[in-house]
Amino acid sequence: MKQVIVVREDLKLGKGKMAAHVAHASLAAYQKVNRSHPEVVEEWESWGEKKVVVGIRGESAIIELYERVKREIPCELIRDAGLTQIEPGTITALGIGPWNDEKIDKFTGHLKLL
Amino acid sequence: MKQVIVVREDLKLGKGKMAAHVAHASLAAYQKVNRSHPEVVEEWESWGEKKVVVGIRGESAIIELYERVKREIPCELIRDAGLTQIEPGTITALGIGPWNDEKIDKFTGHLKLL
Repeated sequence: MKQVIVVREDLKLGKGKMAAHVAHASLAAYQKVNRSHPEVVEEWESWGEKKVVVGIRGESAIIELYERVKREIPCELIRDAGLTQIEPGTITALGIGPWNDEKIDKFTGHLKLL
Repeated sequence: MKQVIVVREDLKLGKGKMAAHVAHASLAAYQKVNRSHPEVVEEWESWGEKKVVVGIRGESAIIELYERVKREIPCELIRDAGLTQIEPGTITALGIGPWNDEKIDKFTGHLKLL
């Protein structure tokens, strides 16, 4: 079990801003899985809540990934409120799972660890 | 209402690793508040789940901050499993709240936004 957070590298977010968006995506995906599959969350928690952060380039790439992943794994796309650094509504991150490692890797295994 | 995540700057974590620790701290503090004060979490969620990431230098500084904050606000200290980059058990981050803005600022207002 792991959670993967995909974050846009091309936005050149500062470290803190990027971390905040990763945390948004992590919490939103966690809440979604917790509603539909609480037993998955429980197992993930018992193994130390593994989280992996990977990068992606481009809004179309992250939307396309989201459209494919959401058919099989609970996930959440995050948009920025746009108060600082970037345009309002910009998609910044995608939180996937927690879910089975191999099933997530099918979609994100090719993406670069950040 | 906001959540503040304090992360150690002196560890020189990579962007992705730092983001993962911020996400750990965010989720752990969220779960703690959700158990003891679900109405606070609900209000925070209704206002867009504001999260702020700030930096601190040194393990003793983050422990000392935790000892002071925990008397008044639900918070969680995060240790690294130590599989990569840093020593096992290293304290990396502190998640505080969500809680009242002013009450958190009393403890973290002097820390630098990341």
